[in-house]
Amino acid sequence: MTSNKTNAGRFFEDYAVGDVIRHAVPRTLSGGERALYHALYPARHALYSSDQFAQSCGLRGSPIDDMIVFHTVFGKTVPDISLNAVANLGYAEARFLKPVWPGDTLRSTSEVIGVKQNSNGRTGVVWVLTRGLNQHDDVVLEYVRWVMVRKNNLDAPVPHAVIPELSDVVPVSELNVPEGLDFSAYDTELAGEAHRLGDYAVGEIIDHVDGVTVEEAEHMLATRLWQNTAKVHFDATNRPDGKRLIYGGHVISMARALSFNGLANAQIIAGINSGAHANPCFAGDTIRAWSEVLETAQTAVPGVGAIRLRLVATKGDAGILRGDDGKYAPDVLLDLDYWALMPT
Amino acid sequence: MTSNKTNAGRFFEDYAVGDVIRHAVPRTLSGGERALYHALYPARHALYSSDQFAQSCGLRGSPIDDMIVFHTVFGKTVPDISLNAVANLGYAEARFLKPVWPGDTLRSTSEVIGVKQNSNGRTGVVWVLTRGLNQHDDVVLEYVRWVMVRKNNLDAPVPHAVIPELSDVVPVSELNVPEGLDFSAYDTELAGEAHRLGDYAVGEIIDHVDGVTVEEAEHMLATRLWQNTAKVHFDATNRPDGKRLIYGGHVISMARALSFNGLANAQIIAGINSGAHANPCFAGDTIRAWSEVLETAQTAVPGVGAIRLRLVATKGDAGILRGDDGKYAPDVLLDLDYWALMPT
Amino acid sequence: MTSNKTNAGRFFEDYAVGDVIRHAVPRTLSGGERALYHALYPARHALYSSDQFAQSCGLRGSPIDDMIVFHTVFGKTVPDISLNAVANLGYAEARFLKPVWPGDTLRSTSEVIGVKQNSNGRTGVVWVLTRGLNQHDDVVLEYVRWVMVRKNNLDAPVPHAVIPELSDVVPVSELNVPEGLDFSAYDTELAGEAHRLGDYAVGEIIDHVDGVTVEEAEHMLATRLWQNTAKVHFDATNRPDGKRLIYGGHVISMARALSFNGLANAQIIAGINSGAHANPCFAGDTIRAWSEVLETAQTAVPGVGAIRLRLVATKGDAGILRGDDGKYAPDVLLDLDYWALMPT
Repeated sequence: MTSNKTNAGRFFEDYAVGDVIRHAVPRTLSGGERALYHALYPARHALYSSDQFAQSCGLRGSPIDDMIVFHTVFGKTVPDISLNAVANLGYAEARFLKPVWPGDTLRSTSEVIGVKQNSNGRTGVVWVLTRGLNQHDDVVLEYVRWVMVRKNNLDAPVPHAVIPELSDVVPVSELNVPEGLDFSAYDTELAGEAHRLGDYAVGEIIDHVDGVTVEEAEHMLATRLWQNTAKVHFDATNRPDGKRLIYGGHVISMARALSFNGLANAQIIAGINSGAHANPCFAGDTIRAWSEVLETAQTAVPGVGAIRLRLVATKGDAGILRGDDGKYAPDVLLDLDYWALMPT
Repeated sequence: MTSNKTNAGRFFEDYAVGDVIRHAVPRTLSGGERALYHALYPARHALYSSDQFAQSCGLRGSPIDDMIVFHTVFGKTVPDISLNAVANLGYAEARFLKPVWPGDTLRSTSEVIGVKQNSNGRTGVVWVLTRGLNQHDDVVLEYVRWVMVRKNNLDAPVPHAVIPELSDVVPVSELNVPEGLDFSAYDTELAGEAHRLGDYAVGEIIDHVDGVTVEEAEHMLATRLWQNTAKVHFDATNRPDGKRLIYGGHVISMARALSFNGLANAQIIAGINSGAHANPCFAGDTIRAWSEVLETAQTAVPGVGAIRLRLVATKGDAGILRGDDGKYAPDVLLDLDYWALMPT
Repeated sequence: MTSNKTNAGRFFEDYAVGDVIRHAVPRTLSGGERALYHALYPARHALYSSDQFAQSCGLRGSPIDDMIVFHTVFGKTVPDISLNAVANLGYAEARFLKPVWPGDTLRSTSEVIGVKQNSNGRTGVVWVLTRGLNQHDDVVLEYVRWVMVRKNNLDAPVPHAVIPELSDVVPVSELNVPEGLDFSAYDTELAGEAHRLGDYAVGEIIDHVDGVTVEEAEHMLATRLWQNTAKVHFDATNRPDGKRLIYGGHVISMARALSFNGLANAQIIAGINSGAHANPCFAGDTIRAWSEVLETAQTAVPGVGAIRLRLVATKGDAGILRGDDGKYAPDVLLDLDYWALMPT
């Protein structure tokens, strides 16, 4: 007697604009997740490393790293959003709205805000607004993501196309500055670098120098840690060479951690404007990163600046971002546009 | 001057029925072990992931995963029980008797309850009743395990054979339901699946779909985490191909975690009726799992059901459990018979 | 527009005797780091495993493992001390001065106490006295380390040579015994071995039996955990064979953990007299260890003895420490001389 109790995932025809999906498996985060994050990535931003440093910046202690929050919230959406996804197409309008503290419990919801069937009739694009909530039902993170999903029943009716209008860039006025954040006693020596917001010029390119070669065990540990169970990341029998596709978020965290070298004071990720996983990453690849300063601005909180950065991760020493055809060069892994908070 | 202070382990003639061995190295468990468990296995059962979910089930917070408790208690026994073991023959009558909370300290004792020398005169079988105790000396877990052990002094007298009588199945009435457990407000959406006890039929087979390819680094991290230091798991020079035998408990945890997909509400392992490590597992193997529903029952606590499951782990897509000769098919890794608690 | 905001590290001419460098990125340690330490090394010393055992020894709970403290303090110094180092030449006069508890925050400072330019004019030796401090500004660890560093500007003046006078051995009277430590109720059964200080004879050699084969993923996780970001440990493109040089501290921790088997009661590392990383270690090497008892002594605290040990780590079964030329045999990885506290 065979069971059909396992999750087959949703197909394109299973999404309707306005649906709100409550994702399963809430998760309590603790010092254990923080320690693992430090083992998995060369993360050194002082605010996420030291309770004392965070207290000197006006916070009650060191919050859970923004990217841990992102991965945890994202991981919960996988069984409902991307199990049958053909491609993860993009992110937009991500805002980190409240710090997450050790002991907090996160869960996720996604609201379907757009659908558009592709002309081939076999796939479609689904836009969702995903929210991460803590145990007090405060939204700690929200972002829009869109994926290409297979249709299962090709005869299902073509839905009315709804394409959400998305900002290219989150306005500085909509970035959240954590309550109490105060950089007036900021210790650049303990933070690791002297450069403040005014020291960065728009157009400046920072090569983050170091490279990290990724092993299968590492990315699988990381991806499981976020309870992201998409099989492409774990099952070597999916490909003849036995390689497992590395979760795109692993590349984001690796690049962000590498960017400490040159951006040690870009302490807090406040928003993500857009992101593209340009090419797949596999074990054996050596991840490097560079950043371009896109914009600098003042937030409403005195002393707290915002720096908009393009963070590019590569395998090898890719100097070229895009080829003559406008496509990403084959060595480019990630092209991320985000806002960080930095002392002025 | 050479020392003989290292542990040579016990041989068959060193065990006598009635002996109680206090195993060394008590261990305090915390959120760190929980985070690592989530990194090592695709574990998603909500009760062990979220304090809030556990509180909604009447518990004071999320307990330490049952399998962490099992591995910790088991690991302590290795230097005294299985250092010179030829084979781990079986488990029986395992009962989880009390939840373990972050901050609790576990230690283990084993009582020798059976011995029987083999007819070859070189080995014998030893049965032990192992107990895991917390810092209040409460028994949190007990189980019987039997191993085949080498004789060191072949002239040592043949002991009177004592073969303990063991139940095939722990009776439902002897399963422990954690104090306060209350499934009346159970949220199936947050748990991940809608199926309750009544939705499972005896004989139903659930294929858990996903596969995880295991790396050397991962199983060594896991096995060390439980302070299980049996050299076969760590020393590549033991075999010409450099592979290390994977600790059987790693396969149990992997299969149990995979079984979330189809058994998300089988929240708590209450007992283990029997278990066999059918074939060795090595790095590079892709572990898959399927379950068969053997029995369903009501516990003494209203709303809390018990489901008896056969959990089979395989490498490859083994559809056949046993060959014509009655032996396990070569792709079968684990055959485990256990009780889980599930909302009715 | 290219940035020069990344850390190029210091060169020989950048160090002057008397300089004090405050290293960046303070770090709060928790149960997460402890759990990872247990996953990365076969660590079983009971005092660092169980709060209850530590309490029975008069402490308020289980402290953070001494080697976690060492690695954390050391890791912070890398960007300022060894980024342009040609070789890590030695350690001396290390003393662990205060226990570190979960929740404590560590930072490091280094005082330059010696410089000597080499006759080649291209490199020099720098001696630093490194101190680890907790959030109360108590020194928890101090040690002297000397490294060979490249000169960047070969025309920079040759500094006046200052070679610090260093003790070969930390005197027993200068070892710190943690406040409250009391071995009068010490439980040798729970600790794992019966041997007390008086059972060890000077000259005694203990072969620690077990071997652990190291994987790339493991040593990279460990080294990152201590925020040690020296690129030789992470970037496979540094060498044609893709191997990454293993952080010497990883070998120390592995050997110390293996030494449990025969030295289970050498609970606390109180001082390090000297240490040499005899040969590089790479993934695939199987680390083994043996110890020689160099000295035994009584501390000022009744019941607390001190045992001076030579801990040698090897790859393969190296029985010979040095060849006829006085150089370390090629299979020797580590030669460490340290003091541990042990019940008398």
